[in-house]
Amino acid sequence: MGRTIDFYWDLGSTNSYFALHLIKPIAARHGATVAPHPFNLGHVFRKHNYVLMEEPAAKISNRITDLYRWARRHDLAFRMPTKFPIKTSTALRGALAMRRFGKEWPFMEHIFARYWERDDASVAETSGLPTVASALGVDPDQFMTLALSEEIGRELAAETDGGLARGVFGAPTFVIGQEIYWGKDRMDFIEDDLKRPD
Amino acid sequence: MGRTIDFYWDLGSTNSYFALHLIKPIAARHGATVAPHPFNLGHVFRKHNYVLMEEPAAKISNRITDLYRWARRHDLAFRMPTKFPIKTSTALRGALAMRRFGKEWPFMEHIFARYWERDDASVAETSGLPTVASALGVDPDQFMTLALSEEIGRELAAETDGGLARGVFGAPTFVIGQEIYWGKDRMDFIEDDLKRPD
Repeated sequence: MGRTIDFYWDLGSTNSYFALHLIKPIAARHGATVAPHPFNLGHVFRKHNYVLMEEPAAKISNRITDLYRWARRHDLAFRMPTKFPIKTSTALRGALAMRRFGKEWPFMEHIFARYWERDDASVAETSGLPTVASALGVDPDQFMTLALSEEIGRELAAETDGGLARGVFGAPTFVIGQEIYWGKDRMDFIEDDLKRPD
Repeated sequence: MGRTIDFYWDLGSTNSYFALHLIKPIAARHGATVAPHPFNLGHVFRKHNYVLMEEPAAKISNRITDLYRWARRHDLAFRMPTKFPIKTSTALRGALAMRRFGKEWPFMEHIFARYWERDDASVAETSGLPTVASALGVDPDQFMTLALSEEIGRELAAETDGGLARGVFGAPTFVIGQEIYWGKDRMDFIEDDLKRPD
């Protein structure tokens, strides 16, 4: 039996884009299942009174350079979006709605590609999501009604609070058993973990 | 001819401890020279008006767990020091004084081991540094006089300002040509860089 890797993600998190791609071969190598959990960073940051600090220009510029290094190393079509940051709660609700249609992961791949590779921020909002549903063969009206329902709203809050309760504080985060791995750059540790007996 | 890797470090930076150890095998594999530069983070943070943000407990706790994962993976005797953070300018001056005796790197290894493995914060101050000098076969009085001299003080300021001028904003940082790698967790990128033709 493969292990389960809980994957907390937000569409607005650059590193979640990379993490989505990087976890796949690792999970495949070890027969592990990746269970995605939308994690509403807007909600988390409000809860933690997170203040976006002004950073030195050299640091900001280095971060972008570093992201393109990751893209090059892993052959990903990443490009920094024009509109950033974005509000993502509608997209996160969409993922939970797609879970009911059995298409949560393809939906994630789709919206991450649209936003982080093709500079299309509409997939974070009601304006762009119906197209995504159609592309995945899901009725867009049925999908949008569900995505915007109170029920799914409560489910997103529960997913986010559930993450917080077990010690998740940011995205991307991978949880394997009791072990919490934050960020896209701990894949070696995750692989070490999966190699160890359960 | 091997390339030169400029290594900006501060004794008070946990990740500089790891970086010091992790860069060695990579430099050795590629015949590169590591040129250390003490980088006075206290000075840098004052200049950048860096404010230490209050962080959620889960994040702080995860950071410590992560450090011990690094130690285990790389078989390092790291332990989180009791006294942290510390003022390091005297130790950084010491490194520059030791440069004159041709023992900068052994000095760095010595003080990093004492602080980050043996919980001895005295090596950051005038109280503990003479012992280090003696252990390295350098006259402690001569060493301390030099370390505390105005000349070395100016040299430390120049090293730090020189780093800032070329875009270094934190420690550890590795600079190879025009490329700046911040942190202990970009060793793969550094190795990729060293593999590319000059």
